[in-house]
Amino acid sequence: MADIITPRTLSGFMELLPKDQVIFDKIRAVLEKTYSSYGFFPLDTPILEDSKILLAKAGGETEKQIYRFNKGDSDLSMRFDLTVPLAKYVAKNYSELTFPFKRYQIGKVYRGERAQKGRFREFYQADIDIIGDEKLNIVNDAEIPSIIYTIFTGLGIEDFVIRINNRKVLNGLYAILGLEEKAADIMRIIDKIDKIGRENVVAELAEIGITEDKVTTLLDLLLFKGSNEEVLANLEQFKGKNETFDLGFEEIQTVIKYIGVFGVPGDYYMIDLSIARGLDYYTGTVYETFIRKHPEYGSVCSGGRYDNLAEYYTKKSLPGVGISIGLTRLFYVLCENDFLNRSHENPVDVLVLPMTEDVTVAIDVAKQFRLAGISTQIYLEQGKFKKKMAYGNKLSIPFCVLLGEDEIAANKVTIKNMETGEQVTDTVENAIAVVKAKAEVTSKFVNM
Amino acid sequence: MADIITPRTLSGFMELLPKDQVIFDKIRAVLEKTYSSYGFFPLDTPILEDSKILLAKAGGETEKQIYRFNKGDSDLSMRFDLTVPLAKYVAKNYSELTFPFKRYQIGKVYRGERAQKGRFREFYQADIDIIGDEKLNIVNDAEIPSIIYTIFTGLGIEDFVIRINNRKVLNGLYAILGLEEKAADIMRIIDKIDKIGRENVVAELAEIGITEDKVTTLLDLLLFKGSNEEVLANLEQFKGKNETFDLGFEEIQTVIKYIGVFGVPGDYYMIDLSIARGLDYYTGTVYETFIRKHPEYGSVCSGGRYDNLAEYYTKKSLPGVGISIGLTRLFYVLCENDFLNRSHENPVDVLVLPMTEDVTVAIDVAKQFRLAGISTQIYLEQGKFKKKMAYGNKLSIPFCVLLGEDEIAANKVTIKNMETGEQVTDTVENAIAVVKAKAEVTSKFVNM
Repeated sequence: MADIITPRTLSGFMELLPKDQVIFDKIRAVLEKTYSSYGFFPLDTPILEDSKILLAKAGGETEKQIYRFNKGDSDLSMRFDLTVPLAKYVAKNYSELTFPFKRYQIGKVYRGERAQKGRFREFYQADIDIIGDEKLNIVNDAEIPSIIYTIFTGLGIEDFVIRINNRKVLNGLYAILGLEEKAADIMRIIDKIDKIGRENVVAELAEIGITEDKVTTLLDLLLFKGSNEEVLANLEQFKGKNETFDLGFEEIQTVIKYIGVFGVPGDYYMIDLSIARGLDYYTGTVYETFIRKHPEYGSVCSGGRYDNLAEYYTKKSLPGVGISIGLTRLFYVLCENDFLNRSHENPVDVLVLPMTEDVTVAIDVAKQFRLAGISTQIYLEQGKFKKKMAYGNKLSIPFCVLLGEDEIAANKVTIKNMETGEQVTDTVENAIAVVKAKAEVTSKFVNM
Repeated sequence: MADIITPRTLSGFMELLPKDQVIFDKIRAVLEKTYSSYGFFPLDTPILEDSKILLAKAGGETEKQIYRFNKGDSDLSMRFDLTVPLAKYVAKNYSELTFPFKRYQIGKVYRGERAQKGRFREFYQADIDIIGDEKLNIVNDAEIPSIIYTIFTGLGIEDFVIRINNRKVLNGLYAILGLEEKAADIMRIIDKIDKIGRENVVAELAEIGITEDKVTTLLDLLLFKGSNEEVLANLEQFKGKNETFDLGFEEIQTVIKYIGVFGVPGDYYMIDLSIARGLDYYTGTVYETFIRKHPEYGSVCSGGRYDNLAEYYTKKSLPGVGISIGLTRLFYVLCENDFLNRSHENPVDVLVLPMTEDVTVAIDVAKQFRLAGISTQIYLEQGKFKKKMAYGNKLSIPFCVLLGEDEIAANKVTIKNMETGEQVTDTVENAIAVVKAKAEVTSKFVNM
């Protein structure tokens, strides 16, 4: 016999038990179905790419985290996001694609970060992007939040808010206040407000030489809490002073107008001028999504508008707007906080338990259930009745079909509701009707 | 502006255009749905594993093909199949699992083979396995072909045959003929018969010292073409001479008896004593699946019964039976031979084309279609009517909804069937009915 190696999974790599995997997959299916229903094509790019191509833009922290290695003459890297592969794909297949090109991709990405609770080295991202050829209408930026809304409420996550800002508005404001050269530093500092508080933000802004009156103007504006109408009214005073600001102001007005038309109720989105999302990539609308009761989770779905998807791979101008859900991290948070709706953990609806050595009738009965659209498993092992029932209980299968000699002789089955304990002996047709009558109480996958 | 790097995808890595990806994903969905409906749990294991664990068993050719590298102190490898990760998973989570444990996994695996047309370095495998604790009833071996049958016919692949053999029958026969020491060589030679022909097989068998009469006995038996009943009748003469043979004979009889009960028509399976499938791993039933008109594709779905899934990771005896579809290769073959049913390449059923600058009504109409369960995209770009229609045509979207000022004023829409050119102006409700009335002609994804 071979030596035994203790089986283990690498730390930072999520590997779920079967019952959790069922729920994870159902959540993933909701995303896929929703994305498709809005006209996004699925996309599947390789996990391995030529390092020269994948790292065209990367640098600093990202590059250190890459899983990069040589095989033969090839310098290979595992993808660290789904955006760079999309840029490569669109540039490569430009002439074969129809623009606006809408695609979704749900796939694993890799970052060799320091291991830490709740941080993953292999994790799923679920991205959607709409890519235009030379231009892309701003109304697309209003459709994206409606997709997030459909997905989150479809999963059962009800208590969230999509925060929306516009980088042109911010850049215009900094220009008007004569702060454009320090804009990057200011945004970085303001971004820390939830962690360090307003007082410390003021102090840090003073440290980099922002005068007190400008700090006050800026913070009063960016941290203002009010309705979208009030925020827009606050911004009105800056109109006509800077072209970028005016453009951004018009964009955010249009986006806010149409989000409601797309069906997102007012409680679920708000302008938040304090969010900025990174510095070089986004050029217009930006989004972050927070669970209201749990701001500590951070943004669970973020994205925005960019001018140039693929500048490293093509001279064509390919503007786009998109958003990404960190699916593995979201699932981890839902698990840890016991938010998963465990009624979805069954692989099948019916378990057929033959009580005779010959299993011919049991197989035939299972076939009839499956033909009626009911997922059905047969327990094929020999053993005591108790052991067979225990299998159904352990897997939380809602119904068991018992087939003893009496049932077979009478051309009937006994169907048992495993939750209530009720059982009846009846024809297969009527047993199928019993299963079908028990509609799912809820189709939501998350309780929050 | 940055330097342009020519975008490319590594050779041996499949990256599909959107329309093909839609079909690939629908095929994958049929597999997932079928596997689930038989009670298999989904499983998703990491693509990266500790090399010591992943390569516990590997050696020779396999080990050379592994993508293996160091990151920090870790020696990592990308998985080359889904069986080793399953073995690790079951050994690691033994106490949390309920046996028989039925799981499916559809995932990418990696083999750094020499690049060659139709050979992939990154490819999907779609595996199912049923794992028992200490023992597993032989009837499970008969359920597996019924799942293959459901999937292949569900996809539209009608002209295939599942060939079934049993390693105990073979080993018993070799023992009875006094050839057990040369069994491995004999099986390897006979396995080449499709490539080199009977004459060369006879010659090679003579070369390794098999006497002519034994060659004749063996080949007459193993290459015999006849009904399952005839093959079994041929084998009857060896009963009672060897324990392993007797056990295998009983197993294959049981499997053949129950495959029909599970609903597989007689044309779709046959005993073929010439198939063996590798040498150490399988210990009982083995399967191969061939497309009748295209034996050159080789087996598109193979597997079998094994005694010990996880002997490198646990002392527990975990017998199982399983099968694997090489999904990427299968898809490649279907593409190359123009077998894909292209009516499945649309992302949505309806494209809404607003003809006014304000798109409020268009968004509202799209919402109503989507609420009725119809996938619907809105074309949000400004532009000429012709350009808008061209978008729908290029994406082969079946219906366009036109919304000009007249329609909006009359509270109606114009719906156009893009295939027939027919169009009517009517209420949204009636337009939805038009789309719903046009049922898919076929739900099959493959024409063969």
